[in-house]
Amino acid sequence: MEKNHSSSGKGGKLSVVGTGPGSLEYLTPRARQIIEKSDIVVGYKTYLDLIEVLLFGKEIVASAMMQEVDRVKKAIELAVEGKSVALISGGDPGIYAMAGLAFEVAKRLDCSIEIEIIAGIAALNSCAERLGAPLMHDFATISLSDLLTPWELIEKRLKAAAEADFVIVIYNPRSKKRSWQLDRACEIISQYRVGATPVGVVKGATRAHEEITVTRLDQLDTAVVDMQSTVIVGNSNTYIWNKKMITPRGYSKKYNLEQA
Amino acid sequence: MEKNHSSSGKGGKLSVVGTGPGSLEYLTPRARQIIEKSDIVVGYKTYLDLIEVLLFGKEIVASAMMQEVDRVKKAIELAVEGKSVALISGGDPGIYAMAGLAFEVAKRLDCSIEIEIIAGIAALNSCAERLGAPLMHDFATISLSDLLTPWELIEKRLKAAAEADFVIVIYNPRSKKRSWQLDRACEIISQYRVGATPVGVVKGATRAHEEITVTRLDQLDTAVVDMQSTVIVGNSNTYIWNKKMITPRGYSKKYNLEQA
Repeated sequence: MEKNHSSSGKGGKLSVVGTGPGSLEYLTPRARQIIEKSDIVVGYKTYLDLIEVLLFGKEIVASAMMQEVDRVKKAIELAVEGKSVALISGGDPGIYAMAGLAFEVAKRLDCSIEIEIIAGIAALNSCAERLGAPLMHDFATISLSDLLTPWELIEKRLKAAAEADFVIVIYNPRSKKRSWQLDRACEIISQYRVGATPVGVVKGATRAHEEITVTRLDQLDTAVVDMQSTVIVGNSNTYIWNKKMITPRGYSKKYNLEQA
Repeated sequence: MEKNHSSSGKGGKLSVVGTGPGSLEYLTPRARQIIEKSDIVVGYKTYLDLIEVLLFGKEIVASAMMQEVDRVKKAIELAVEGKSVALISGGDPGIYAMAGLAFEVAKRLDCSIEIEIIAGIAALNSCAERLGAPLMHDFATISLSDLLTPWELIEKRLKAAAEADFVIVIYNPRSKKRSWQLDRACEIISQYRVGATPVGVVKGATRAHEEITVTRLDQLDTAVVDMQSTVIVGNSNTYIWNKKMITPRGYSKKYNLEQA
């Protein structure tokens, strides 16, 4: 592959498009327009199925879950050939998703095609929405996937976040192959938070099979958590009201809600 | 105000609607529909101006920036009266924004109207999009506003996040009245990160006056940062390529991009 194909007259471009949590009601007009205008749509089959109505008559390159790098390389190749390519990412491509891989692969291939990122509603946004208002104060977002990150570093971050009283958003909490990490994470967090700390689990946010659980740290049944779930652990001030998980905005008492 | 007004026949409802970073291209169809169907739209004038085209012929309650609690109380009162009320929040109401205040005020007033949150593209999503791919790995989101949070706790979190090598997203980095906090935050982070650590600043994301800066920790001119800015500080692996800020997905070398 040669350099600077983007300066050829053909104007290929790679758009990494976030399609949000699943429902088309969460797809931004910008994302929709870029998918509609693209020559080719590349993506993981499950995410493409969720936006099927937009794909009628389009050239599609679908692939399986674990072939992310292949998918990105294919998308870049097509853009280098002059196509406008929409590479689909569930959620927001900018949060633990395809945006970085697009740049990383382009850099490795020394290929300077135009790459643009189209933000979407990420799992943290949609899960917070479903749970109430858990992210009203500082939060740390931690992935429990130790495929590309040493487990020691993940533990270090869990401890740091728990000790400094961050709300904690857990991505990739549990899968069939990674069954013990969430239990261990809860054990670590429990060293710094009381058992009554609210915990929310959202599985398949906005999709037909959506499940929302609001519970406490000492009562969380981690077996119900799967790879389509996101977990949010409250800070020391988070409380549950009307089945919603609410983190107050302030630690001091400067704002008087009664006088409001 | 009495309890359980929601069970009156009138069916009032409060929807806390995120309108994203500014451009209507980032407003989800769900948010748009709820605004269009609502009886009354309540919001801060600057945010209402950004969605002006949706408000034609609507009843509007606009207010100034610092009257957040009044605004929420007014919105709840109108919902109790049976109206469907859209309370507008820039970005995502679920991230440091109006969602929590809606529940907090409703709870304090012992008022059980239906409250729903409509997620939007938050500053962290849109700023990450503009900068490239800074949030590909664990990140901590910290507000430097010490109006409702003791500064000691903010410092503790900055240290914890810096030491555990989180990417750090800084909300409310600087305003006319809070001019020293960002310098102090950079000083703390610099105890754990090298001077060459990439830092991105996005001001007015997606709006006409948008400004994007990608620089290094030891070269950041904090004077250019204002209350419309979000700052992202990379982790120890973040690098700059083609003016984009990129955090690799992995710490280990398990994924081989060349063979991809």
